[in-house]
Parts: sequence; structure tokens; C-alpha cells
Amino acid sequence: MLKLPGLIDPHVHVREPGATHKEDWDTVTQAALAGGVTTILAMPNTKPPIFDEATLNLALDAAKAKARCDYGQYIGAGPDNGDWDKREALSLQAAGLKMYLDSTFGELRLDDMSLWTPHFQKFPKDSPMVMHSESRTMAAAILFSTIYDHPVHIAHVSLKEEILLIKAAKEKGIKVTCEVCPHHLFLDKDLTGFKNLSGLTSGRTEVRPRLATPEDVQSLWINLDVIDCFATDHAPHTLEEKDSDNPPPGFPGLETMLPLLLTAVDEGRLTINHLIEKLHTNPKRIFNLPDQPETWVEVDENASYEIKASETFTRCGWTPFEGWQVKGKVRKVVLRGKTAFEDGKILAEPGCGKNIRS
Amino acid sequence: MLKLPGLIDPHVHVREPGATHKEDWDTVTQAALAGGVTTILAMPNTKPPIFDEATLNLALDAAKAKARCDYGQYIGAGPDNGDWDKREALSLQAAGLKMYLDSTFGELRLDDMSLWTPHFQKFPKDSPMVMHSESRTMAAAILFSTIYDHPVHIAHVSLKEEILLIKAAKEKGIKVTCEVCPHHLFLDKDLTGFKNLSGLTSGRTEVRPRLATPEDVQSLWINLDVIDCFATDHAPHTLEEKDSDNPPPGFPGLETMLPLLLTAVDEGRLTINHLIEKLHTNPKRIFNLPDQPETWVEVDENASYEIKASETFTRCGWTPFEGWQVKGKVRKVVLRGKTAFEDGKILAEPGCGKNIRS
Repeated sequence: MLKLPGLIDPHVHVREPGATHKEDWDTVTQAALAGGVTTILAMPNTKPPIFDEATLNLALDAAKAKARCDYGQYIGAGPDNGDWDKREALSLQAAGLKMYLDSTFGELRLDDMSLWTPHFQKFPKDSPMVMHSESRTMAAAILFSTIYDHPVHIAHVSLKEEILLIKAAKEKGIKVTCEVCPHHLFLDKDLTGFKNLSGLTSGRTEVRPRLATPEDVQSLWINLDVIDCFATDHAPHTLEEKDSDNPPPGFPGLETMLPLLLTAVDEGRLTINHLIEKLHTNPKRIFNLPDQPETWVEVDENASYEIKASETFTRCGWTPFEGWQVKGKVRKVVLRGKTAFEDGKILAEPGCGKNIRS
Repeated sequence: MLKLPGLIDPHVHVREPGATHKEDWDTVTQAALAGGVTTILAMPNTKPPIFDEATLNLALDAAKAKARCDYGQYIGAGPDNGDWDKREALSLQAAGLKMYLDSTFGELRLDDMSLWTPHFQKFPKDSPMVMHSESRTMAAAILFSTIYDHPVHIAHVSLKEEILLIKAAKEKGIKVTCEVCPHHLFLDKDLTGFKNLSGLTSGRTEVRPRLATPEDVQSLWINLDVIDCFATDHAPHTLEEKDSDNPPPGFPGLETMLPLLLTAVDEGRLTINHLIEKLHTNPKRIFNLPDQPETWVEVDENASYEIKASETFTRCGWTPFEGWQVKGKVRKVVLRGKTAFEDGKILAEPGCGKNIRS
């Protein structure tokens, strides 16, 4: 039996408020615990988006009532809320600032770089800033980081050009960190990794950033040392939505991340130390998270099983890794001295999760 | 009579080799002299593009035979010619390296940032690198400049977000310079500045970067001190091409730049010192150009006249500034002791121009 620290997933779409038919604070934290994750950081692009005191409280109140593991809630950067110097207390309640620099929508719309400036200037220097920024937009975000002297964390790196540029920036001493999602390590645009191709709708391969080329995937594996964190970008949508004419992008990931990575360990593609570093030590440091005393995850390294959506806790009811044979099963999760998950059963109660910023 | 130094235009599309029905080394240098410009730097996106020894010689041979003013020829960055360390002599024959980071075509295609790296690493440290890079791509180019420690010059800045970011980068000590084109100072996307709107085809307003908003234009004027150079981006196409169903982007500019800017001086919007700095002193330094002894431009500051394409030397036969009343006329240009232009007549002979890198 392998004992791991409580894992941290810094990139989760909880869907509450606004789309609880896909997921809510209860189901998402059940999925987290089943995946060995004891802390999730929730993204702010909900309905409504989280961008001010009222909307932050909306999310935090729901979390407080329902969450079964620890959590933080990002606040989103918008065109009109860059005056963080006037709202420092609010900014310190958030897990960090999320900036959507590529996709542009509603209150979190930031398509003009001039709108980035106040956020970089005024968000508290010691608080995390996370960028959705692909390709050259990512490079632009790193330049802003350099000019305004605020570290940035790059979400869901998927391309060779991205990981190589982050490597070069780190070598130059620029304060940039990054995360990579399992689906960008195990799936590609040629549909490598998908089982049962005959039943695969195009919607079930839609994710942002898109699945990349095999060369991109290979570059992530080659540059494992440049990757600070693994993160799921858990983005549940129902199968009905995914199989519709206008499928929303996004995959669930909380329950498949650890078994996929443990299988890669078994295959010699990475080490247990890599896992602990990228799923605990690094995210704890980067996101300035408190200790979770008496917290651990027990894994049966030798248990082989098949991934089945029917056995998951996420409300969305499917996984792109359906049918994968994996090796390494979460047996037990202990959170602050109490058994939260054991042998396939959630034991933690709703509301027992703590806000990492309180 | 106002006496100016010989002006430098670091951004000219000569169209030779490959499209001499639009312009060639003879007509473009006549247009330059008529505009008070005694040195032009020619862009490499000709047909064929200039990207190796054979194509560089093609352009330089034509220039040597025909040019009536001094000149340099850029070499273009492509996916396969980044090994400048092995071809240093060639790189030093060029005016500098031009990188097309937004528009992507043929031999000068650079759409993946990984393809930028060898150029930044291996182009000679003291040789100019000029970027066609708009918006966040511009930010990416500046990040590469920072990481690989090679100064960059940003071509045709047109947006508020661009000029403000360059300002911030300069304040941080990053070695970036930039140029602005007269058409981005005097025209905008609302068609402010165009006369005779009823005869205006959409093709005659097409230029890259596109004409911007009045707010963008205003930001350039407000941040004059951030602008290192004025440059024409002289890009001649025939009227037949501009009025066609698929009009190519680009404006001629060599003969209208100085009178337009002198008119702005007359209106108190900038000073003669600004002109000398941005049309001579700064480009001479940035592009490491040799002295032109006994070279000057005589201008009648008080001569008012109407811009008419019918009175220009460019082969393309039109100008977006048709009908503008301007104040300030080039009377005489003396290049290395010889009168090259006087009272509307070109006196310099083809072949008298010198390569600034020879």
C-alpha cells in the first residue's frame, strides 16, 4: 500500500453557481476525494461569473454548505474590476486571480491587452495569478509578468512551443510556473488514446486547449521537469450536451488523474516523486496553501482495473478515458484525521471541507 | 527654406524582384528622393522572397543597377534559415532580419513560436531584427527579445495596447524600439482623413496593420515620445489591383510622409526636432547606418499644395491622401554632394545609390 499526501488540483470547474445539472460543490468534492484529491481550487467562469464580493460569496456560501474536501475559489479578472488596491481584503479571500486571455466572454472579457495592466499592477504581489493563455498569448502574459514583476502560473500547457518557451523563460530567471492536464499527456488530436472509436462523437473530443499533435504530447513528456503541476481542468458537461450539435468543450478529470499517472509510473514514464512534487509540493507552494494535518491517501499500487464512468461520482456521467486499463487504485483518503473515502465509498459529510483562505 | 538631414525610411516594399508593374528599384528611389528620403531599407517579401544568398543577390544586383538613393535590403526569417551562426557574412550583408510573425506565407512562414528561437539565438547580436507583430504577438516578440537578449524593432505600431506596452517595456529597460506609419497617424477605420468618399473603394482602405480606431490614433499622438521612428511601409499596388474584387493590402507613402508631418508641425502637433529625431537620428542609430556626407534636404516650409497622385513618381499611380492640402514642399535634395532632386525633377542617375552595408 502506497501512502501519498493529500493531492491538490488547482484547476477545477465546479459548475456551481449556475449549472448544477452538470456538477455542484457536493458531487465535485466527492469526485475529488475518490481521485485522492483533498484540495480543489475552483475556476470563476460560472453563471454568474465570480468577479466581485457578491459573486464570490455566492460560490463560497455554496462551498461552505456542501464541500466534502478543502477548497479555494478563484476570482476572475474583468475589464472593470482591476482596482484591487481598493479591495485588497476581497482579493485575499480568493484562491487567486484567473485571467481569461484567449476565450472572451461577458464579465471576464479581456481581449485588449490594455485591460490586463491594472490587474498585473494591483493584484496583491504574493497572491497567485493564473492565466488561460495559449501560444503567443501565453508569451504575452509572461512578458506582462516580467514588466510588472508579478509571478504568473500558466494553466493547461499543451503545446511544444509553450513548454519550450516556459523552459527558456525559467532559465532566464522569469517567475513563471505551469500546469499540464492528463488529457494533454494521454490523448492527442489523432484520437490516440480513445477507445471505442465507433461510438465517439466529435463533441467528446472537444476540449480547450484542444487536443494537440503527437509531437506536442511528446514534448510535454520530454520536458517533465519544466512542468510544475498536474491539474485536471475538470470541466464536466453531460453526455447529452457533449453529443449535441453544439457540444461545449471540456472533460471531467478528477477521478482519472491519479490512476492514469500511477499507470505511467508503473510503465516507468515518471516517478512517484514526480507525482508528489507536481500534485502536492509544488501546488502547495505556488498557491500558498495551508498544511492539512493528518491527511493522506492510501493507494493500492498493484490493483488493476478498468475505468468506467458508471463507477464515478461526478454528475456528468462520462469520461474520455472510458475503457482504459489502469494500475493503481485509491483505497482510502484521510482528511484532517477523518476517513473521507474508503473502498469506493464517500464518508466525508457535506460541509466538512475548509476554505483554504479562511 | 528649412534644411533637414537626408531622411531614412526603414520600411519600404520595393516590389523588385517579382512585381515590377507595381514598382521597381528605379521608381521607388525616385519616389524616395521626391519625398526627401535618401536611404530606404527594403522588405524581403518579394517574389521570390529574400531569404538566402541567391535571393539576396537578386535584390542587391537590381538595386545596384537602378537605385538613385542609398539602400539596404532586409533578409527574411523562415522556418529553415535560422542557422545564422553558419552564415554570418550573409547576415551582415543584409540591412537586418525581418520576421513576419502574424502574416504567414511561403518561405517566410513562422507560425509556430518554436521557429522563432534559432533566429533570436543566432542572428548577430549587433544586427537589427524587425518584427511584423501585432497585438499580443508583439508582446511575444518582446518576450523573446528579453529572453534571448537581442534588441527588437517593432514595425508599424498602430494600436493603443501596442504603444502602451512598448512604453511599459522601455520603462522596464527592455531594448525595444518601434516605428509608426503616417497612415496610422492621419487615417482611421472610420475613414477619417479620406477625401472624396463617394469614389472610395473598400480596396483603397485596405492596409496591414488595418486602420485603427480614433482612440488608437489618439494614443499614438499622445505617446509621440515612445515612437522612435516614422516609417512609410510604402506598399505600392496598382489602382486596378486596389479596386479589384480581391484587393491586396498596402498604401504608397514615400512622397506623402514628409509633407503630412510638416503640416502637423505647422499645426503645432509635433516639432521639427521630432521629425529630425524620428526620420534621421533614431533610425540611423537603430539600424546602424553609415554617415551620408554632404547630404541634406531643402524644404519650403510655407509652400502649400494639394497632394495629387498624378504628380508622384511611384509607379502605382494613387495615394490614400489624394486631395489633402499640405504645407511644406521638398525643393531640393543633395546626396553626397550631388543634387539628386530639384523643383520636381529627379536628377540622380540610376545606379548612383549605395548599399548601406557595403
